[in-house]
Amino acid sequence: MADTRARLLATAADLFQQQGFNGTSIKQITEGAEATTGSLYHFFPGGKDELAAAAIVTSGAEYLAMFQLIAAVPGVRAADAIALLFDGAAETLEASDYVDACPIFTVAHEVASANEPLRIACQGVFATWTATAAAMFRKDGLRRKRADELATTVVAAIGGAFILARTSKNADHMRTTGRNLQALIKVLADDSAARATRTRESGSRVRSGRINRR
Amino acid sequence: MADTRARLLATAADLFQQQGFNGTSIKQITEGAEATTGSLYHFFPGGKDELAAAAIVTSGAEYLAMFQLIAAVPGVRAADAIALLFDGAAETLEASDYVDACPIFTVAHEVASANEPLRIACQGVFATWTATAAAMFRKDGLRRKRADELATTVVAAIGGAFILARTSKNADHMRTTGRNLQALIKVLADDSAARATRTRESGSRVRSGRINRR
Repeated sequence: MADTRARLLATAADLFQQQGFNGTSIKQITEGAEATTGSLYHFFPGGKDELAAAAIVTSGAEYLAMFQLIAAVPGVRAADAIALLFDGAAETLEASDYVDACPIFTVAHEVASANEPLRIACQGVFATWTATAAAMFRKDGLRRKRADELATTVVAAIGGAFILARTSKNADHMRTTGRNLQALIKVLADDSAARATRTRESGSRVRSGRINRR
Repeated sequence: MADTRARLLATAADLFQQQGFNGTSIKQITEGAEATTGSLYHFFPGGKDELAAAAIVTSGAEYLAMFQLIAAVPGVRAADAIALLFDGAAETLEASDYVDACPIFTVAHEVASANEPLRIACQGVFATWTATAAAMFRKDGLRRKRADELATTVVAAIGGAFILARTSKNADHMRTTGRNLQALIKVLADDSAARATRTRESGSRVRSGRINRR
């Protein structure tokens, strides 16, 4: 029983990433998952919408776990983890002949103005991704606001790079975007580090009495 | 007659950006354009696919013209033009309550693996955008390869920022992404300028005999 539910979720995610939410029928999902329409409504009484929301949340968690694995490799700094993430996405695109993208970006565009529960499901996934990336940037020394903004930029860029790479059947667009973000993150992290050093130095001058005004 | 064709194109673009390609029916397009189904097939014998391809090309040219207007303002450097572009997109999103996004990114995701003529239409639009941005970056001193890669990153980021901003109903995601790209472009342009200065200086040292090896 649990297997059928998992197969429905995985099949829905696969079909959404290949042909979008509106382009996917319940029949295609049940056939792909080798499940009956009855079992789909058993697990997801709200039908295609409820299944889609669950598939978005599940896929979002899977992508997040993948990123966290990369980020947890000892010695990997935030900038390099992001570049590795883009490289991994590029390989997945090439290996699947540009069929396998991230289902969430595809669905998000379609539903943003047309399906409020699905919009909220996508928003929740993007929020967890952004928060995780921002936490990583803060560990690299960025202040909260800058880390949040940078995380938004990274999540936006990966979504758009999926579109460009799939549309042009050229995964180098994904790699290139990753390299440029890596450069940006390094510049901002170095800038924060330099600022922190200046602050420490001016603090020690104040404490040692060389500068006696704040 | 030409008016009907233009109305069909504009209505199709509007509906695609609001609800995607697969979510839009021929009936919705003809009703919105106040046109008959016969006139749609008169102007676009290939039906919805041919109309969509034409709408993508037309919208792509309109967005390009808008960007070229911004870029042509005297004294505006590439980095600032990009920030202004993102700011303009943010305002459009807010003014339309996040309904009006760019139809091309929405359609591109849906059709990339499912509709080859539409994929090619989207690819063509992205290629003209990228080439135009790259030309601007080259005028700012970037070398060809770096300018091309940066242009790809900018086009990817605007596509993804549309998704994030619409999904979160927060246009600041668009502005923030624009500001981060502005910073990246400035760093790369300054880097190119510094490299060019070093090359000129080393050239003049060679010419003045201070350094006699290449």
